[in-house]
Amino acid sequence: MTQGLPHPLLQALVGDEEVGALFSNEAELAAMLRVEAALAEAEAGAGLISHEAARRIAESCRSFRPDWEKLASGLSRDGVIIPELVRQLRVAVGEDHAGAVHLGATSQDIIDTALVLRLKSAIEILGRRLSRLIQSLAAVRARDGSLRLIAHTRMQQALPFTAADKIETWIAPLERHREALQAFAPRLLVLQLGGPIGTRGELKGHGDAVAGAMAEILELGVAASWHSQRDRIGEFAALLSLLTGTLGKMGQDIALMAQNEVGEVRLAGGGGSSAMPHKANPVQAEILVSLARFNAGLLGTLHQALVHENERSGAAWTLEWMVLPQMAVSAGAALNRAIALVEALTITGRQSG
Amino acid sequence: MTQGLPHPLLQALVGDEEVGALFSNEAELAAMLRVEAALAEAEAGAGLISHEAARRIAESCRSFRPDWEKLASGLSRDGVIIPELVRQLRVAVGEDHAGAVHLGATSQDIIDTALVLRLKSAIEILGRRLSRLIQSLAAVRARDGSLRLIAHTRMQQALPFTAADKIETWIAPLERHREALQAFAPRLLVLQLGGPIGTRGELKGHGDAVAGAMAEILELGVAASWHSQRDRIGEFAALLSLLTGTLGKMGQDIALMAQNEVGEVRLAGGGGSSAMPHKANPVQAEILVSLARFNAGLLGTLHQALVHENERSGAAWTLEWMVLPQMAVSAGAALNRAIALVEALTITGRQSG
Amino acid sequence: MTQGLPHPLLQALVGDEEVGALFSNEAELAAMLRVEAALAEAEAGAGLISHEAARRIAESCRSFRPDWEKLASGLSRDGVIIPELVRQLRVAVGEDHAGAVHLGATSQDIIDTALVLRLKSAIEILGRRLSRLIQSLAAVRARDGSLRLIAHTRMQQALPFTAADKIETWIAPLERHREALQAFAPRLLVLQLGGPIGTRGELKGHGDAVAGAMAEILELGVAASWHSQRDRIGEFAALLSLLTGTLGKMGQDIALMAQNEVGEVRLAGGGGSSAMPHKANPVQAEILVSLARFNAGLLGTLHQALVHENERSGAAWTLEWMVLPQMAVSAGAALNRAIALVEALTITGRQSG
Amino acid sequence: MTQGLPHPLLQALVGDEEVGALFSNEAELAAMLRVEAALAEAEAGAGLISHEAARRIAESCRSFRPDWEKLASGLSRDGVIIPELVRQLRVAVGEDHAGAVHLGATSQDIIDTALVLRLKSAIEILGRRLSRLIQSLAAVRARDGSLRLIAHTRMQQALPFTAADKIETWIAPLERHREALQAFAPRLLVLQLGGPIGTRGELKGHGDAVAGAMAEILELGVAASWHSQRDRIGEFAALLSLLTGTLGKMGQDIALMAQNEVGEVRLAGGGGSSAMPHKANPVQAEILVSLARFNAGLLGTLHQALVHENERSGAAWTLEWMVLPQMAVSAGAALNRAIALVEALTITGRQSG
Repeated sequence: MTQGLPHPLLQALVGDEEVGALFSNEAELAAMLRVEAALAEAEAGAGLISHEAARRIAESCRSFRPDWEKLASGLSRDGVIIPELVRQLRVAVGEDHAGAVHLGATSQDIIDTALVLRLKSAIEILGRRLSRLIQSLAAVRARDGSLRLIAHTRMQQALPFTAADKIETWIAPLERHREALQAFAPRLLVLQLGGPIGTRGELKGHGDAVAGAMAEILELGVAASWHSQRDRIGEFAALLSLLTGTLGKMGQDIALMAQNEVGEVRLAGGGGSSAMPHKANPVQAEILVSLARFNAGLLGTLHQALVHENERSGAAWTLEWMVLPQMAVSAGAALNRAIALVEALTITGRQSG
Repeated sequence: MTQGLPHPLLQALVGDEEVGALFSNEAELAAMLRVEAALAEAEAGAGLISHEAARRIAESCRSFRPDWEKLASGLSRDGVIIPELVRQLRVAVGEDHAGAVHLGATSQDIIDTALVLRLKSAIEILGRRLSRLIQSLAAVRARDGSLRLIAHTRMQQALPFTAADKIETWIAPLERHREALQAFAPRLLVLQLGGPIGTRGELKGHGDAVAGAMAEILELGVAASWHSQRDRIGEFAALLSLLTGTLGKMGQDIALMAQNEVGEVRLAGGGGSSAMPHKANPVQAEILVSLARFNAGLLGTLHQALVHENERSGAAWTLEWMVLPQMAVSAGAALNRAIALVEALTITGRQSG
Repeated sequence: MTQGLPHPLLQALVGDEEVGALFSNEAELAAMLRVEAALAEAEAGAGLISHEAARRIAESCRSFRPDWEKLASGLSRDGVIIPELVRQLRVAVGEDHAGAVHLGATSQDIIDTALVLRLKSAIEILGRRLSRLIQSLAAVRARDGSLRLIAHTRMQQALPFTAADKIETWIAPLERHREALQAFAPRLLVLQLGGPIGTRGELKGHGDAVAGAMAEILELGVAASWHSQRDRIGEFAALLSLLTGTLGKMGQDIALMAQNEVGEVRLAGGGGSSAMPHKANPVQAEILVSLARFNAGLLGTLHQALVHENERSGAAWTLEWMVLPQMAVSAGAALNRAIALVEALTITGRQSG
Repeated sequence: MTQGLPHPLLQALVGDEEVGALFSNEAELAAMLRVEAALAEAEAGAGLISHEAARRIAESCRSFRPDWEKLASGLSRDGVIIPELVRQLRVAVGEDHAGAVHLGATSQDIIDTALVLRLKSAIEILGRRLSRLIQSLAAVRARDGSLRLIAHTRMQQALPFTAADKIETWIAPLERHREALQAFAPRLLVLQLGGPIGTRGELKGHGDAVAGAMAEILELGVAASWHSQRDRIGEFAALLSLLTGTLGKMGQDIALMAQNEVGEVRLAGGGGSSAMPHKANPVQAEILVSLARFNAGLLGTLHQALVHENERSGAAWTLEWMVLPQMAVSAGAALNRAIALVEALTITGRQSG
């Protein structure tokens, strides 16, 4: 019971275990190995390496036990993990087929495709939660929608309306986000394969065939090499921030409605205070605001990484790595917090009038 | 000759006259009057006001001569321009029909719809320039594409490839942006009509009919009132930043290629220096980087405004006003700069090898 | 009466005429000419040019009538205004002494020093307003300080305290900002003189003497050439954002206190609504929040420009130009708005209890 | 050897073990317990609790074994860790003295003071590394300073100068940062003690005495309660970003100098590539750029948290928690990377001319 936590304590407040797991060391490694195995299988299909080599590589990827410390020092030295990973993988594959490992590919092919594989899972998770949140909001609307609230504009009482009117302003953008995420997914979820400089030149005329086969194996879409074109990443990040922004707006609304003086909502399980036991703080609602502002800021930082110089920018790419996972986790956390908030929410309506 | 400029000098470097004009005082006023006239016409159609009143309002909007100073002080006092504008417009319309002006609408209806009208023009301008830029790049590719360059990864020489390979990495995302802009336009270019609290309640059951008619008059799409849901604005801003980001990447590439030591491109009309007449600075390319970083930062700020509390946030809405026009102008400017840059560009290729 | 405004209408809401004037075309030109004249005078003192030439340059600077259009196109072409300005100035000076104009200096010397001259005025203005605001707050505290308010933590009522307790939390950081601004001024308000590459090499051994004399003439501090070291600019921007942040916090507090349901303050002259005449919106308070969020975002962007490559980055420097004036104006505007807000503020205290 | 890492792999590239350790769960807990013990000791001195209670609390803090899972769920529920921590600590202290634990304090007192304690260590670490980096740069200057380089302005060759000229532009701002950090430390490193609403009201007239004693025990400065005034945090964050910005500029310079075509520096131990064994990538230099852009963006986000509403903002405070540790770690990492980069750096100078 007194054992430490495997993650920063703050993650209990603003983190998301399920989305966070997609960006764990283990998940990243597994995805990269999946890409290396798919590359080998596709190359065997194109006759670039032997089927035996591909099988051996697939086996080695499945049973691979990394030397994490060396991966870390390789990453620190090379700026990417792949050179050291490939070295370890070649040792695991054995001398006979070592040369078939990672053939014609480059770090960015493996890392970007492994990222896309995990973003696919992230999109599924976010989509599922969006649907649940929309349902939960619809349920509150069905239950409490006819209650009278007072609309507030510019922080002042305006005119009366109903709880349904208010809830609708939360649901509508969420429905747009769900649709946008679905529409965007096929554009984002595409293979990256370009080789060292993005031309698939090392694949000796089989580049497109290998890419097509890899995409099929990995259940991703096909696209030309995009490793120096980061607009898809930037667009995905924008969707994440739009989502957290919408939830932040809902959170801010609920925190305002939950003010003692306003009293338009009641929140089951509000947070306690160390000094004032009478308080029930709208913690979930506040966190939605924090996550919205966090992601908004990170979005601006991620778009700085669109200036990705030449055929690979170590500086810009690393910046993406630092930012994007946090944004996805924050979006996941915001959805979880929003679901919990809405499911604990009772609209009490205007007491008077 | 010695007369001052009507705008900050810096606009000569980073501004865009055509897009900038959409956000001038005059253009904003004209758009707002167009919306007031459309509202009156639609309300006359629904029988809420007389046709005579609508005609009188339309005439007054056409011939309206604002008292700018009073508009400015009204804006300063009320936080929005509409109360004072409506007051002036009512005076212009005359006592008989003054009550028919702005009936059942609120500031946000007029301002947001007037914004959307101008964003429609902005999208047309950006789309046109995107097409021209893509054509210009295709022309360079056709002319110089077979020249050999050297790919650079992580700021180091990697392997040789062709100019066509490089240019393709600039064109591909631009084509995606053009497509995204077209796909997004119908979602953005919708009427805002909600009345004081977004319910269209003051239109006495005719709200949807009035909205439908207004949208038709103004050639905008129909949508439920969205005045407290700023995701469309946030999504548009993201597209602007993606666009400037892509151009910034191209600008950074060209500035690197234009280094004396690298010499892969020649730029006609490079900028001069006050101290070193021998220099030909890649000014256009540098400005693309500036505009990319500027818009990336502003995007993060604009997404802060997604947290739009309750039925109208004076704080968040004002923040949008401060940010969005700058982003649109920067995107326009970047496209103009990019076109000029590409049309002055000669790829010289690797001198040796 | 119907004449247009010389500036964007929005400036009536979020602008500052006095600070804005420091960044007008005219003020920038005047400052640059002051720097050129001081350079000539200092160089004459060091024997680099004749006293006659210096006198002639000083006269020409005083009577200089720019061709603004050519300055604009020069800026657009060269990325900086100085080459064209120097050309025009040399024409004005006349053939005999044309060669003495701008001798040994570079664009950045003139522009950065001209910026510093205006930041000196900005700091004076901000300091004066800070003092007035602190006095106004102290006056409210003296008048209303004993009234009972209720403290709110996490958007919930906590415990009672006094208006003086609350006002003190607004005053204390303002006093720190005033002190920080005074402490920082001597570090910021220093001459930039480096010549083309920052070494003062073109001044033939007289560089430090010329710099010393210029600094004295311009009433600035002396420093080594700092044109590629933008930390002073970044630090000043941080102070501006700290200031607007503190004022944004006060604005947010007052907007919350002014809620109808809370009613702890009364604001004279609240903003009107086009649809709801009964409302008195806390516009000034909201604008403080907008300005705080605007400057916070811009600060992040300005710090991107710290990555100022080599001996002059066109990209990073231009980015500064786009951001810093807006930040200074926003700080000025926030102070003005805050003064107006506080001077219209009556604390009404808790009605009950 | 195949065991996982206790932290995200990416930390091997952009993290800092020593600074990171200050923000570990264990370090945070230890600091909070230190504050609780100091509070008790100070309160015993003021006669608010018995000396026996204070001793018992001190012992319990020393031997405290947390239930981490419950701390995490408490944090998730309450938005702060303190209510659950105090509960556990009271159990550990035992019934007799449980009431003396955390007497008159609030969550923010403990958390903010515990943060300040660790920022004190962070400042020491950063200061030490700054000194070493400045020394290392001075050593390179002493060794290679007379070599001729070519200055580059606007990405073009300007004029020759010496390596010493260039290195001086890196050292000078670092010296300013070191000085600024020292000057700022006493303003930042102050106790927070305010009680639930910042008035020290629960300490029955002994507030200032308790604060003074606590500050002395904890070796911090004394200050009025500042828990809703976040300017000190915002100012510290600005210093962190100024520091990473300066290092990012140096990194960008070195990456440009290390280009094969320029060849002005040689880097021992450059990073390898998975596809191109001939490459030696300037990984350390690139990472400095990444960290600069990361911190610049985060600074903008942190300043959003200056808008800290009322007597405690759950939303703004949480946002700080998400941002500030990352910024401190990035500053630490950048210094470490910069030291390694400089110590592996040989300036080769211009080969010709």
